[in-house]
Amino acid sequence: MTRMGHAAGTDFRSPPALSGAKQGTTVVVLGAGLAGMLAAYELKRAGYGVRILEYQNRSGGRNFSLRGGDSLTELGGATQKVGFAPGNYINPGPWRIPYHHQAILHYCRAFGVALEPFIEVNHNALLHNSASFGGTPQRYRDIMTDFNGQTAELLAKAINQNHLDDVVSADERHDLLAAMRGWGLLDVDYAYRKSDKVSLRRGWAKAQGGGPDGAPVPSQPLPRAEVMKSGLWQWLAFNMNYEMQTTMFQPVGGMDMIGKAFARQVEGLVTHNVKVTRIEQDERGVTVTYDDNNHGGAVGQAKADYCVCTIPLSVLSQIDVQARAPLRQAIQAVPYASSVKVGLEFNRRFWEEDEQIYGGISFTDQPMSQISYPSHGYFSDGPAVLLGAYMFGAAAYDFAGKTPEQRVQAALQQGAALHHQYPKEFRTGVGVAWSRMPWTLGCCATWSEESRRKHYRDLTEMDNRLVLAGEHASYVGCWQEGALLSSLAAITQLHQRAVRAA
Amino acid sequence: MTRMGHAAGTDFRSPPALSGAKQGTTVVVLGAGLAGMLAAYELKRAGYGVRILEYQNRSGGRNFSLRGGDSLTELGGATQKVGFAPGNYINPGPWRIPYHHQAILHYCRAFGVALEPFIEVNHNALLHNSASFGGTPQRYRDIMTDFNGQTAELLAKAINQNHLDDVVSADERHDLLAAMRGWGLLDVDYAYRKSDKVSLRRGWAKAQGGGPDGAPVPSQPLPRAEVMKSGLWQWLAFNMNYEMQTTMFQPVGGMDMIGKAFARQVEGLVTHNVKVTRIEQDERGVTVTYDDNNHGGAVGQAKADYCVCTIPLSVLSQIDVQARAPLRQAIQAVPYASSVKVGLEFNRRFWEEDEQIYGGISFTDQPMSQISYPSHGYFSDGPAVLLGAYMFGAAAYDFAGKTPEQRVQAALQQGAALHHQYPKEFRTGVGVAWSRMPWTLGCCATWSEESRRKHYRDLTEMDNRLVLAGEHASYVGCWQEGALLSSLAAITQLHQRAVRAA
Repeated sequence: MTRMGHAAGTDFRSPPALSGAKQGTTVVVLGAGLAGMLAAYELKRAGYGVRILEYQNRSGGRNFSLRGGDSLTELGGATQKVGFAPGNYINPGPWRIPYHHQAILHYCRAFGVALEPFIEVNHNALLHNSASFGGTPQRYRDIMTDFNGQTAELLAKAINQNHLDDVVSADERHDLLAAMRGWGLLDVDYAYRKSDKVSLRRGWAKAQGGGPDGAPVPSQPLPRAEVMKSGLWQWLAFNMNYEMQTTMFQPVGGMDMIGKAFARQVEGLVTHNVKVTRIEQDERGVTVTYDDNNHGGAVGQAKADYCVCTIPLSVLSQIDVQARAPLRQAIQAVPYASSVKVGLEFNRRFWEEDEQIYGGISFTDQPMSQISYPSHGYFSDGPAVLLGAYMFGAAAYDFAGKTPEQRVQAALQQGAALHHQYPKEFRTGVGVAWSRMPWTLGCCATWSEESRRKHYRDLTEMDNRLVLAGEHASYVGCWQEGALLSSLAAITQLHQRAVRAA
Repeated sequence: MTRMGHAAGTDFRSPPALSGAKQGTTVVVLGAGLAGMLAAYELKRAGYGVRILEYQNRSGGRNFSLRGGDSLTELGGATQKVGFAPGNYINPGPWRIPYHHQAILHYCRAFGVALEPFIEVNHNALLHNSASFGGTPQRYRDIMTDFNGQTAELLAKAINQNHLDDVVSADERHDLLAAMRGWGLLDVDYAYRKSDKVSLRRGWAKAQGGGPDGAPVPSQPLPRAEVMKSGLWQWLAFNMNYEMQTTMFQPVGGMDMIGKAFARQVEGLVTHNVKVTRIEQDERGVTVTYDDNNHGGAVGQAKADYCVCTIPLSVLSQIDVQARAPLRQAIQAVPYASSVKVGLEFNRRFWEEDEQIYGGISFTDQPMSQISYPSHGYFSDGPAVLLGAYMFGAAAYDFAGKTPEQRVQAALQQGAALHHQYPKEFRTGVGVAWSRMPWTLGCCATWSEESRRKHYRDLTEMDNRLVLAGEHASYVGCWQEGALLSSLAAITQLHQRAVRAA
């Protein structure tokens, strides 16, 4: 608990103190994503004998970045060769780190990963509803200023007409009116209207300048009914989410800097290219059976005293797992979200040079959903990559059904409604459909309230010698933080079990 | 004009094209701040013969940074020797650059000044009113979430009770209720109350975790009457100002990187240590008389065809200027703001390590007004400097009346109400009172609406061979952008006059 009232951050405080491990106890970790690598790292530090089995030919799991020269093959066989210019990248998986994700921030610091601010809110970015304002995108600052001002004006009117006297005391009435005027930029008559004061928040029709002709001209607020009907306020709300608040971070040079830093900590412990097919356990230990793709798919086995399994449930549900029925049911109970990201490279940073948008996100009701401008390399010359589509739900299934080339084309075509420079400046793109990644078959676990109630505890409690970890085994789902916290919780259970057994 | 509606940014488009300058025409520029250096740079490029006279022993003007080893002497004779650790600095003058200040961003790019994001809004920073909440600082995110939710709840109530039917159509009624619920996080009964939904914006009482015990516990909203009475919403409003919006920037390594970059462009043109005492002009040219402190204060004169004078009005009003009466009156008409900044160095980044505050600003009603946490060096070990006080108005006069040591002590004592770590972790500090800087006698010009109307045009129009520049000669007062825009406007007038005369 902090001094200021309630606890801040996720429930990470410090790495677990796993003292008293019995010499020679062994653990097999399944999956070399962040959860698996952290488990291996901390267990090894505690004195356990650890190895990791990993399906892919690299460590990092969903933490990866795509750069020029990389290739990506998806279910169905389509292979994309990334054509980005040197230094450019896209993060198909995790791409931003909230300030309260203290576990990942701790390990970034411990493992030497440099971080820089990720810009989520950009007041000069665009908000777009195809059916509002004649389809013209609006500036975030205009929607924000007008929505707040128009809300304040209506509330002030109700208060001034004594309609809220039953719930507002005379004292509070005074405070509320002052608040509505100050926060909503109302004039002396409690009206929200075109003025210098309002333009000092939403920007000017003619900008402030210097010299004799420097006087600005105020801008005209948008009509209230259309602001409300547009629903564009939803993005103001979205950006206030705890997970979207400032200050967010990203690793300097790409999100895979984190995966690579973790991989350095577990060097020599990982066997890549093995596909787990069965997990068995009895009173003596755990046996994991796998196809060894380093040796033509030959069947192999790994034996250990305990197992930390971080395989995504979408994949694990297709593997034979020897466990109590409630755990087996839990593994089957959680569907995975579909999500698609498209990275687009352009000849130049027209969003900066022409539009004064530096980082941040524009939102649209089109299927591609959003454009995120890079939070690095500001003001630089040469080609740059933005995130040209990122969506969940129905639109993601639709995009995943397209060929990679069609995904890029759809993102380009839809994005042109926000940036007319798209067709002229486009160079190359890549479209990653998470439901088509054979090693995860989706983006992340989507718990419902009901499935949480029925299955979460069963999924996360250690089952004899087997314990699960990964973002799916946390309340911080779809975030790297959830993977790390679940991993720490898993190895803490494992250690207690092992010490008890010793 | 951009495609999206109204013009963005200040009125900078590109450097002026000053073609056709007459060979041999000379200009004397007074002051080697940004306005003066830019005038000299662009005029020289256009073919003019230029020299700059500067009172101080360095270029940059109000653009400077203080580092360990620097010393600063103020009116009254007090000298501070800065004791910061290597690499640490404070920017006593300008310290942040809005995205729409396109002139300074243009010249930073042109002159090779690397920029990084300056964090203005930090949702985890503190808002403090000594008379509210028992004097306990509140998290920005708590005030923001509760203020919005409580505002939405009241407006939804008025709408649901049909009190606004005269101004809200049936269609808009539906849109407004949806907006209040979504934006304000109201429940199914349009109530704003403790819930998971609300905690997903304001944060949790027990944080989200991983493993079996990962379930979070919702946090309790603050009482509405006290939120409104506290007035802390004013900081939400302040941070929405066009000038405070994302994405803001700062130079990597200190604001003086800009002053130094400008200085490199005018190398050889500047004479330091000369104090202008008179400016005369006639039909043949301009004569500037000065005390040459390089030579024991000997009187010297500089002659040129034209003069760009960037001396702050607070100083210029004490100099004999030969000009039309309206310009002389304008020079006398504009008071200068007093402002104080205190830089405090601490042993470690406790605001990051203990409080999860990375950059951004905490605000308080105490005289020191605000604490700004560094927007660079995040997560690093060792001593770090924050801005421990920055205020205008009466409090600034009070702080300026203290000795430098007293300023630091006052900032420390008041800051301890927000951060209990202050006394334990403090190392050293510096307090800069702008009203005591002999070369500017204040922070910046404070135009009233009335003084603008009466004097602005007279101040900024060229008077025969003399034209003024500086932030005071712009509508972007107190910002570097204003200095640059006024400078471009001034040299454009000068060039037109010179070409006409040729």
